[in-house]
Amino acid sequence: MPKQFDKLPIALDVNYLEPNVTTDMVAERQAMVKFVDGLLREGNHPGSEFTGWLKPETIMSDYELAKLNATAKRLANDTDVMLVIGIGGSYLGARAVIEALADDPGRVVYAGQNMSAHYMTRLKALFKGKRVAINVVSKSGTTTEPAIAFRVMRELVDESVERQMIVATTDANKGSLLDAAHKQGWETYVVPDDIGGRYSVLSAVGLLPIAYAGIDIAPLIAGAKACADLCASTSDPLANPAYFYAAARNVMYQQGFGIEVLASFEPRLHYLLEWWKQLYGESEGKENMALFPASVDFTTDLHSLGQYIQEGRRVLAETFLIVDGGEPSLTIPESEDPDGLDYLAGQEVSYVNSKAYEATASAHRSGGVPNMTIHLQQLDAYSMGALIYFFEIACAVSGLMLNVNPFNQPGVEAYKKEMFKLLGKPGYESTESRQAKPKMVSF
Amino acid sequence: MPKQFDKLPIALDVNYLEPNVTTDMVAERQAMVKFVDGLLREGNHPGSEFTGWLKPETIMSDYELAKLNATAKRLANDTDVMLVIGIGGSYLGARAVIEALADDPGRVVYAGQNMSAHYMTRLKALFKGKRVAINVVSKSGTTTEPAIAFRVMRELVDESVERQMIVATTDANKGSLLDAAHKQGWETYVVPDDIGGRYSVLSAVGLLPIAYAGIDIAPLIAGAKACADLCASTSDPLANPAYFYAAARNVMYQQGFGIEVLASFEPRLHYLLEWWKQLYGESEGKENMALFPASVDFTTDLHSLGQYIQEGRRVLAETFLIVDGGEPSLTIPESEDPDGLDYLAGQEVSYVNSKAYEATASAHRSGGVPNMTIHLQQLDAYSMGALIYFFEIACAVSGLMLNVNPFNQPGVEAYKKEMFKLLGKPGYESTESRQAKPKMVSF
Repeated sequence: MPKQFDKLPIALDVNYLEPNVTTDMVAERQAMVKFVDGLLREGNHPGSEFTGWLKPETIMSDYELAKLNATAKRLANDTDVMLVIGIGGSYLGARAVIEALADDPGRVVYAGQNMSAHYMTRLKALFKGKRVAINVVSKSGTTTEPAIAFRVMRELVDESVERQMIVATTDANKGSLLDAAHKQGWETYVVPDDIGGRYSVLSAVGLLPIAYAGIDIAPLIAGAKACADLCASTSDPLANPAYFYAAARNVMYQQGFGIEVLASFEPRLHYLLEWWKQLYGESEGKENMALFPASVDFTTDLHSLGQYIQEGRRVLAETFLIVDGGEPSLTIPESEDPDGLDYLAGQEVSYVNSKAYEATASAHRSGGVPNMTIHLQQLDAYSMGALIYFFEIACAVSGLMLNVNPFNQPGVEAYKKEMFKLLGKPGYESTESRQAKPKMVSF
Repeated sequence: MPKQFDKLPIALDVNYLEPNVTTDMVAERQAMVKFVDGLLREGNHPGSEFTGWLKPETIMSDYELAKLNATAKRLANDTDVMLVIGIGGSYLGARAVIEALADDPGRVVYAGQNMSAHYMTRLKALFKGKRVAINVVSKSGTTTEPAIAFRVMRELVDESVERQMIVATTDANKGSLLDAAHKQGWETYVVPDDIGGRYSVLSAVGLLPIAYAGIDIAPLIAGAKACADLCASTSDPLANPAYFYAAARNVMYQQGFGIEVLASFEPRLHYLLEWWKQLYGESEGKENMALFPASVDFTTDLHSLGQYIQEGRRVLAETFLIVDGGEPSLTIPESEDPDGLDYLAGQEVSYVNSKAYEATASAHRSGGVPNMTIHLQQLDAYSMGALIYFFEIACAVSGLMLNVNPFNQPGVEAYKKEMFKLLGKPGYESTESRQAKPKMVSF
């Protein structure tokens, strides 16, 4: 389908949505999508203070990008590994791109995304004898997980060069981390005020670690801009694949589907799926609404959740993320031993994988799972940029169609408040905790 | 709660199930659970030919276990890394235990669980200069993914020692892989006839790679036996935590809950969650029924799916998997920089993590998500064995309560048949494919 990629490096195949979701049903939402697109463009909706991502080429200036690239190059030359300390949007976007595109994703490792003593202890052991750069990413500097990890991991950086090897990505004007950076002389990059965490991958939040990993960030931004330009040119879901995706999700939800499964056949897209779950889960999962976002790595999970998807409760819709070309050549060798595979000898592994995808899309549709496919021309920075923007703007439109604020996450505070009470954090200790006593099944 | 661990190294806290799921509702299912337990014990149910896992200490004889340990030791001494080639149950069980318990989980790597040319190419590059053992795991030897991976990866093993470094885990009496093993002189271990893939972790399927990774398999089996003995002693769900879990799931499903989220606060349990999803998804996800099994790694995903769990569509139930003790000591250091964390200086990271769990369980329950917690006394082989058996027998009981065969997976064949057609596999090429032409959103 090369002609599909004339304008964008990604394309949307909607053939297997029918019969549950028809083009007519999507077309019925043209006016609603247009209305919502208007709200988004005019900043006339709840959360409109967080739409700085809409024009990806304006998030960072050319000067800031050049500075960021220089910092990344300096750190990559002077260290063996970068430790990125962050959680949620300060973690998942960078990791999604690095795992998908870097030649050696292992050069970037992560902390502050959990509170496991075992994980951090093992990580420290791995660093023995290595030169470590740290990029600590936090708008406020006081989020519990990254703050703990930063305290624990700081000693990894040789005292004599500490200042040069720590970079803080944080608020431009205020906050604990900015204060610490000024005091200690660390270089800083900005978490923009008008972009929420889960939309921040194309700001310094994601781009510094991505550049450290050796990924060219110019085509990443160019891909996002190509998708932004197309989306700005028409709000018609029948001509705009991101808006079609948003409208189709709305149809599914209204039709009673409860779960959207995002499925890839390429393991290095695993963290892109994780990033997508945060994007949609946090943007839409409120006011007792929304499709539950789940993900599977195929063909691995065809031998796991595949059974459920094929024959379980019929509340599933599915979206495939497929890499069409550019995969390394690896042919299936001859074998003198019996394994039932002789009919595939000499074939490319990627060809067999693509047929597995086609078979799965067909079988799941036959099983009552409407599905769409997002094709990537190939898995490179340009396609990835377009894909990121595709999901971001589709998520905003989809959320606004549900009449929720797609840019807040009020529910994330609930466990934090409980935790601060239990830990006796100043300002929280007086409130009574709802924690109840364990009730064990006796045996 | 140490007294809870008198008989078993795991315990079930059901306090946060109410009000949606009450002990009374579970008690109402006592007769049904007893009936189903009887079917299971007497082998009087669909799939009863696959209950060889019921007595974990009888799956392998002492002689076979000694032989397996000797093989694992020989391979561990003579090689740097073991490549396990398998998919589904021939992959997930071993990986779940190894990632959770091994000192160096990286000594075992995996192939045949996907068809990514990129993955396999990168894997081959990683093996440069390494001495590699291969354990190929397949009942038939003809499953597409592992058969391809085995062909591609075999050349990694030095030709002169190939025979000694390849071990095939396969059918005892027949099949392509057994034929190849006999022809080539590879050592073999048995995939039992009476144990399906997703229940096979405590057979040679899981135990050989587990032993290679340096994990003592005796306590693993002893833990499973302890749980088996308790389950054999009473079928009352109020006295048997595995049966309580099964009955509570049945209540949830009947009450209209659609998704069970299994949540861990320990990253090294990630693949145990993956194993659980196969176990429940394949066992129950049929005849348009069952809770959809999803998983989250907390606290990571509290900053992702946490929002949805707290405030999204109210169809979620949750089960926590919590490690109570034995975690490495790691205290939060003092810091001269501001980060709002001074109230935690000197505290154990594992203490803060445990409070995050308690806060999450409380907050989610307040948000309308009934939840249970499975406590592990500590994360060791004995607890892991008990946990594996807990989930296995609870899954059988839960599936039988839904009146499905918990031991087949008919839906897994659907994509395979389509794929064989598309690939022109002998015997499939004549049937017409349902594959339709792509229908792109034009732009």
